Amino acid sequence: MSESTNGTKAAPSRRALLGWGGAGLALGAVAAGGTAAALRTGSSDAQPAAAAGEAVPFHGPHQAGIATAVQDRLHFAAFDVTTTDRAALVKLLKEWTAAAAAMTAGHEVGDGAYGGLPEAPPDDTGEALGLKPSRLTLTFGVGPGLFEKDGKDRFGLKDRRPAALIDLPAFPGDKLDPARSGGDLCVQACADDPQVAVHAIRNLARIGMGKVAIRWSQLGFGKTSSTTPDAQTPRNMMGFKDGTRNIAGTDTAALDKHVWVGEKDGPAWLAGGSYLVARRIRMHIETWDRTSLKEQEDVFGRDKAQGAPVGKQREHDEPDLKAMKDDAHVRLAHPDSNGGIRILRRGYSFTDGTDGLGRLDAGLFFIAYQRDVRNGFVPLQQKLARNDALNEYIQHVGSAVFAVPPGVRDKDDWWGRALFA
Amino acid sequence: MSESTNGTKAAPSRRALLGWGGAGLALGAVAAGGTAAALRTGSSDAQPAAAAGEAVPFHGPHQAGIATAVQDRLHFAAFDVTTTDRAALVKLLKEWTAAAAAMTAGHEVGDGAYGGLPEAPPDDTGEALGLKPSRLTLTFGVGPGLFEKDGKDRFGLKDRRPAALIDLPAFPGDKLDPARSGGDLCVQACADDPQVAVHAIRNLARIGMGKVAIRWSQLGFGKTSSTTPDAQTPRNMMGFKDGTRNIAGTDTAALDKHVWVGEKDGPAWLAGGSYLVARRIRMHIETWDRTSLKEQEDVFGRDKAQGAPVGKQREHDEPDLKAMKDDAHVRLAHPDSNGGIRILRRGYSFTDGTDGLGRLDAGLFFIAYQRDVRNGFVPLQQKLARNDALNEYIQHVGSAVFAVPPGVRDKDDWWGRALFA
Repeated sequence: MSESTNGTKAAPSRRALLGWGGAGLALGAVAAGGTAAALRTGSSDAQPAAAAGEAVPFHGPHQAGIATAVQDRLHFAAFDVTTTDRAALVKLLKEWTAAAAAMTAGHEVGDGAYGGLPEAPPDDTGEALGLKPSRLTLTFGVGPGLFEKDGKDRFGLKDRRPAALIDLPAFPGDKLDPARSGGDLCVQACADDPQVAVHAIRNLARIGMGKVAIRWSQLGFGKTSSTTPDAQTPRNMMGFKDGTRNIAGTDTAALDKHVWVGEKDGPAWLAGGSYLVARRIRMHIETWDRTSLKEQEDVFGRDKAQGAPVGKQREHDEPDLKAMKDDAHVRLAHPDSNGGIRILRRGYSFTDGTDGLGRLDAGLFFIAYQRDVRNGFVPLQQKLARNDALNEYIQHVGSAVFAVPPGVRDKDDWWGRALFA
Repeated sequence: MSESTNGTKAAPSRRALLGWGGAGLALGAVAAGGTAAALRTGSSDAQPAAAAGEAVPFHGPHQAGIATAVQDRLHFAAFDVTTTDRAALVKLLKEWTAAAAAMTAGHEVGDGAYGGLPEAPPDDTGEALGLKPSRLTLTFGVGPGLFEKDGKDRFGLKDRRPAALIDLPAFPGDKLDPARSGGDLCVQACADDPQVAVHAIRNLARIGMGKVAIRWSQLGFGKTSSTTPDAQTPRNMMGFKDGTRNIAGTDTAALDKHVWVGEKDGPAWLAGGSYLVARRIRMHIETWDRTSLKEQEDVFGRDKAQGAPVGKQREHDEPDLKAMKDDAHVRLAHPDSNGGIRILRRGYSFTDGTDGLGRLDAGLFFIAYQRDVRNGFVPLQQKLARNDALNEYIQHVGSAVFAVPPGVRDKDDWWGRALFA
């Protein structure tokens, strides 16, 4: 997981594109002109690979940030909707979409008000000025509370709630903090430069002031998953490669089978979308670090050095599940032990200082995408939560689930349009 | 502040250097062999520049991580010493030094126990395996509490406390959280890859178990300062370039005058060292974002786009202080307004989620090095805390001061040797 951005590459900087300091440039023009060349016109599900530092196309049949090659850094935010006005919420989602299209293309939000309207607050907070697009993706989701909360149909959407958007069941060992769980909306910002990811969430929060409020947010400093089949899996905070056999972003058959909501799955507004499960998994780092190498390797079912399954030589060798202990993590999580269940993992390591007892508050911010959580994360976690040897060293302390709409097709489309149609 | 590491560069990975998975390699051999070529032999104070991804030399007359070109990421930890045994503390500092020499050179901690002693916990936690050295620097300091705490001379060091290692006075507007302030020891880990910086602090904490405990730690995701004179100053979370006129790491005259403790300054054990002030500065992001561009620029005394001083065109143009408002930040902080006081700044932006009220817990983790805090940070902050227009938008919520010993000269030297001699 070394930095992959090539600092010497002549990618256009934000300032160069915006003509910063000169005449203002209308957002419409930016979105239409700046990203037009990058618009996806083909029907392939596979995301085109963006070079390091470059822009990932925002428009397409699926949202970017799912099958997209995993970027180095994360800022994830869950929002509570505070307005009760459906029209205000719709207006915000349109504004958010325009801002997201601009920011992922490497532009600032807004119409150049820095130079034109000094008596107004700037349209963009400015801390990403001069930085590259950095493969920023912004992925938008809607939580159960948008459809119904405390028995109320808040926005006339109750009948549109997907059957698969369940409230996650309680799992054995969960110790969930409500302040780090749930949310009516979410935005996952991934980028190779953390300042670009932080900037994006902050500007969306600023635009949403008075209509939404951040419920919780999480920075991830290092990716733990790869959706690029030829890449090595990055190591997690336990020093292991986990999630080796992830779904590749180029494997359209697997994406269609396990990740994208199909036309027949329903509801229609979600076709081409997915479901996101986020879990903040605290690791008992200090306990793990006092555990023998043998115990660590038995717990995972891999060797620590290479990441090879028990008895094998290389990370990507086919695992012999029966050679592992019954409660080994790899054995329990393997599709062969779960009727073929596969999920697309996109987790990040986090370290949020210390916990007041001298222990690092560190672990894995687990993110998984799937076609149906009832056939994805839920049965997998029900098995793992009961049996996984890893449970001695981890605890789930935050949880959220979101339905992730399909991609924004073009500049007239917006996040949630089909839902609110 | 875009990512500067060139991912395509053929820097040796940790695994290649260690011969990982094969026979163990003694730490002594690693330290002596692996870093010998990189040892500094000259007497120049200037740090040789490390290429992106490469190792920064650990040994030298000054500790690395001060004049060193600023890396992209930070993990800073303050420790309480929990042992009362001076010999145990000395032993730990020797172990820490050996581990720091290995990790900054891009090696793992220890003697290859992964392969040799499966029944023991690994000597290294492993999550940086395969990553590049990433310009990791580890900078060690000692706080006031090491010399005296609650009236007790804990380790026979009371008479060795430098006169300049004062307890910082209370400044107007401070709202310090004791849980984020102070500490008997500190280690500043800077690297271009955050996983490398996090790994380093975590392994030092692990090695220190039972003798020291982390009191607080702080991740910084983006540098806000530059010690490289030809580089643009990165933007802080307010979107501004601040600290433009920082001391350059190559300006040996300025370093000798303002940063390094001189032979005659005393005490002798600190000659070639420095003093570190760390302040966690929370920014009232949401208030700032609703402020007009004109107000923002008046507060700083710069324009936001270019970072140019009031009435000037470019960031590095000589400022006309009298053209600024009386309470402009640049005007108040400028050496000409402070009898020539200069400090070397090495701060990082942080975002630690939200504060429970829907506001981002974000700001600047300020780090400054100086020859004497009584002629450096203290008078500067006394002036700023009373007068700076910026105070409406910020609050100091954490504070610590440390004496930073001189560099580790060679493999027989260790952090604090002269202090404990």
